[in-house]
Amino acid sequence: MSITARLEGALAAALEAVDGAGRPPRLSAAMAHAVFPGGARVRPRLTLAVARACGCDDLELSLGAAVSIELLHCASLVHDDLPCFDDAPLRRGRPSVHRAYGERLAVLCGDALIVLAFQALGAAAARSPQRLAPLLARIASGVGMPMGIVAGQAWECEPQVVLRDYQRAKTGALFAAATAAGALSAGADATPWLALGEALGEAYQVADDIRDVAASPQLLGKPVGRDRALGRPNMAQELGLDGAIALFTRQIRHALDAIPACPGAADLRSLVLLEAERLLPEMEPPLEHAARVA
Amino acid sequence: MSITARLEGALAAALEAVDGAGRPPRLSAAMAHAVFPGGARVRPRLTLAVARACGCDDLELSLGAAVSIELLHCASLVHDDLPCFDDAPLRRGRPSVHRAYGERLAVLCGDALIVLAFQALGAAAARSPQRLAPLLARIASGVGMPMGIVAGQAWECEPQVVLRDYQRAKTGALFAAATAAGALSAGADATPWLALGEALGEAYQVADDIRDVAASPQLLGKPVGRDRALGRPNMAQELGLDGAIALFTRQIRHALDAIPACPGAADLRSLVLLEAERLLPEMEPPLEHAARVA
Repeated sequence: MSITARLEGALAAALEAVDGAGRPPRLSAAMAHAVFPGGARVRPRLTLAVARACGCDDLELSLGAAVSIELLHCASLVHDDLPCFDDAPLRRGRPSVHRAYGERLAVLCGDALIVLAFQALGAAAARSPQRLAPLLARIASGVGMPMGIVAGQAWECEPQVVLRDYQRAKTGALFAAATAAGALSAGADATPWLALGEALGEAYQVADDIRDVAASPQLLGKPVGRDRALGRPNMAQELGLDGAIALFTRQIRHALDAIPACPGAADLRSLVLLEAERLLPEMEPPLEHAARVA
Repeated sequence: MSITARLEGALAAALEAVDGAGRPPRLSAAMAHAVFPGGARVRPRLTLAVARACGCDDLELSLGAAVSIELLHCASLVHDDLPCFDDAPLRRGRPSVHRAYGERLAVLCGDALIVLAFQALGAAAARSPQRLAPLLARIASGVGMPMGIVAGQAWECEPQVVLRDYQRAKTGALFAAATAAGALSAGADATPWLALGEALGEAYQVADDIRDVAASPQLLGKPVGRDRALGRPNMAQELGLDGAIALFTRQIRHALDAIPACPGAADLRSLVLLEAERLLPEMEPPLEHAARVA
């Protein structure tokens, strides 16, 4: 079975596990709407790729960690789209959860997905119970306080923004958690894998900023120009398009450099380059260069 | 040190653990506002009382479970108070989190408290790692889908309400998780403790309905008459005040009957009776009767 099929199956199983008798049906439907059909599933695929590179010996736990990371990502999108934040009408080319199910169910859907992320992680730890506490801590640090994605979002509510903390927390933290969780789920040390996650997270943040300025809403499946409209920091506005593209290329190079020597290094390099091309298709020539020098 | 002091200390320590460099300061402040000063801390005290009755051999883990339960309760209050739900201006006699910090920080505060609940639980499991997965599953089931407090809140968004599922999930689930978590944190079987939590949860829901109809906002520290204003089911409206009070007394009696035979039974009985009197002071005579017959 392909990794994609396994991952979608594990996500579906996590939702089914809490879809029993007694549940409020519209909340169930809102949760499924938030998770399926998904985006590129980059973070959980990264978790699984790192787990494989570390000699994955408990696929159930690695899948549980990947599912947990993806559910937290989906939860953050649902809450980011709320009227009090972006008030986004679209997500992945469809109505956002609050447009489809109302604001109250969108708040509860995000809450329930956060809880489900930890339920799925715990349920997957039967064979390796001693790995659960460090995994839980690492995944939670990617989403909570002081420097996870919720903290990153909260910087938008501060009178003075520490830009570096904002950027890192907003995207980098969950990517770093994704690589670290892959290693921990395989019983390996997480430390050597953090830099890869952080570099990829920073590249994603810049790519997101570039697309918010330069892409079309049809291409993105969500509105563009939101950062300027909402007065949020955006690297492509700050550095200019060329400057932001140069920064993106540099960060992808950092990500490639950060892959530790391991049997799975070549696969991980391919994954990073494929993602980079998917993020900014026009970047192909500089990325080929990055691949050569890396 | 008293249980109250230990519990407040453990809650403060959980918040301090994520209050490090790099955190957005207003989100930190909002989280502290949501947790301190607290209410009666009934759920976590119940967790600790059951842990003691089960021969608590890992106080750190029992405190971690109690803290986790209380943080989830605080998170649910912050989200319940949001403009799209109750739009409550007051909570515990002070401005609600969204009135004090704005709606966006209130959403993020609830999210961060949910994550912190699982962080605190994981961090407390160092000495008993094999107890973490069942504790995590039980606590999460009290708050998530299909029948936790988030599901209970979601019944308010359904076109047709299954009243029994709504009442149980809205309050009973987290009480049942509180007693079960106390047992699990002490390495004991959770099953004999669920009925006590469920009965107490049902009693709390009815007491809340009675006070929503009959109390003054000064006494409650929050607005009254909200159920009628928001078109929500309320037992005191459905059964009349006398009927609801009789139901409350019956449920307290069920709770007393549900306490398993154990060395801590007398202490637990006192805790239940004290809580009942605190909830509905005018109920003293029937409760004394309940205590005699129990």
